[in-house]
Amino acid sequence: MIDLYTTSSPNGFKATIALEELGLPYRLHHVKLSAGEHKRPEFLALNPHGRIPVITDDETGVVLFESAAILLYLAEKTGQLLPLETRPRWEAIKWLVFHASSMGPLLGQRVHFEMFAETRMPIVIDRYRQLTEEAFATLDARLADHPWLAGDAYSIADIATFGWTHIAAVCDFSFAHHLHLSRWHERVAARSAVRRGIALPAPATGP
Amino acid sequence: MIDLYTTSSPNGFKATIALEELGLPYRLHHVKLSAGEHKRPEFLALNPHGRIPVITDDETGVVLFESAAILLYLAEKTGQLLPLETRPRWEAIKWLVFHASSMGPLLGQRVHFEMFAETRMPIVIDRYRQLTEEAFATLDARLADHPWLAGDAYSIADIATFGWTHIAAVCDFSFAHHLHLSRWHERVAARSAVRRGIALPAPATGP
Repeated sequence: MIDLYTTSSPNGFKATIALEELGLPYRLHHVKLSAGEHKRPEFLALNPHGRIPVITDDETGVVLFESAAILLYLAEKTGQLLPLETRPRWEAIKWLVFHASSMGPLLGQRVHFEMFAETRMPIVIDRYRQLTEEAFATLDARLADHPWLAGDAYSIADIATFGWTHIAAVCDFSFAHHLHLSRWHERVAARSAVRRGIALPAPATGP
Repeated sequence: MIDLYTTSSPNGFKATIALEELGLPYRLHHVKLSAGEHKRPEFLALNPHGRIPVITDDETGVVLFESAAILLYLAEKTGQLLPLETRPRWEAIKWLVFHASSMGPLLGQRVHFEMFAETRMPIVIDRYRQLTEEAFATLDARLADHPWLAGDAYSIADIATFGWTHIAAVCDFSFAHHLHLSRWHERVAARSAVRRGIALPAPATGP
């Protein structure tokens, strides 16, 4: 059985969406950041970096943090959401890592400086607008020729990337001018497992 | 045969180090950023995001960017630098992704704001000092109990992480107070393949 420790956030949604897509049984543990639960010793024993999501799998003994690693693990465990053929498999992994390195962290910085920073710093906001715009444009170019990031099949690369386009949409960071990316986003958003995933864990419930 | 398109940089060194460690034959193509070669159509056809490193493998037809994806590909291709047993394998992948998401991008931002930004912004510099310090501390805790990030064996997780500790050292971003991380860094730096990798491509040579 898989245990998932998470909260309602872009990185957390990737794990809940993947588990819902796969239909894997799992126990959901709501880590309440406002109560500092991610800094408690029992959580730091799972992830010394103090970030969600984390999964443990008592079938294998694996304890995993970093959402992209979790997605890859769930895909390999089930043989789903990751193409088996060499080239599409590496397309999926390439775009999964693109999201992990070149999209997510920069959108995270943009969210901080545009939404939360006490001091408004236009130079810094412009930097992250430009860098995230480059990431959106790169994704849009890929999706101009392919229905899904890996090519013909929906995969963990789409789930990972959607985790952040969903937050971009929530924050009003528009990518509507990227038509292929926008249409892809709507297709992913319409999936029932995705709708379930972004509602978990329900912000007001626990534990 | 593998073709590697790269320049002398933290992300590039990960690919050259891995290829040198593996002893794989490869052709090295020096992409000269100062001449804008990464924005030319022939390079953008390989990576629409316009970043190095990129590899192509004519045995499989795979074209790959994002250094963490390249490392994983080279490890799977050769069966080396990635443990085969389940738990250590996922430790390696977890720390590889930790580097890709939670260490490298933040160090990249720190390098920008501390070394290159025209305006010195102490609030922003402090943010990235604190975030990279958290990443160093997390790695140090892991390396307190294990000689290598995956556990007992040197792996692509060490190569990836070294790409950035090397640049941190070059930029005088000290992590000497993290004894385990510092000792690990020295052990990696002493490897002959690593010494070769960080000298490729020689900055003054081409093509």
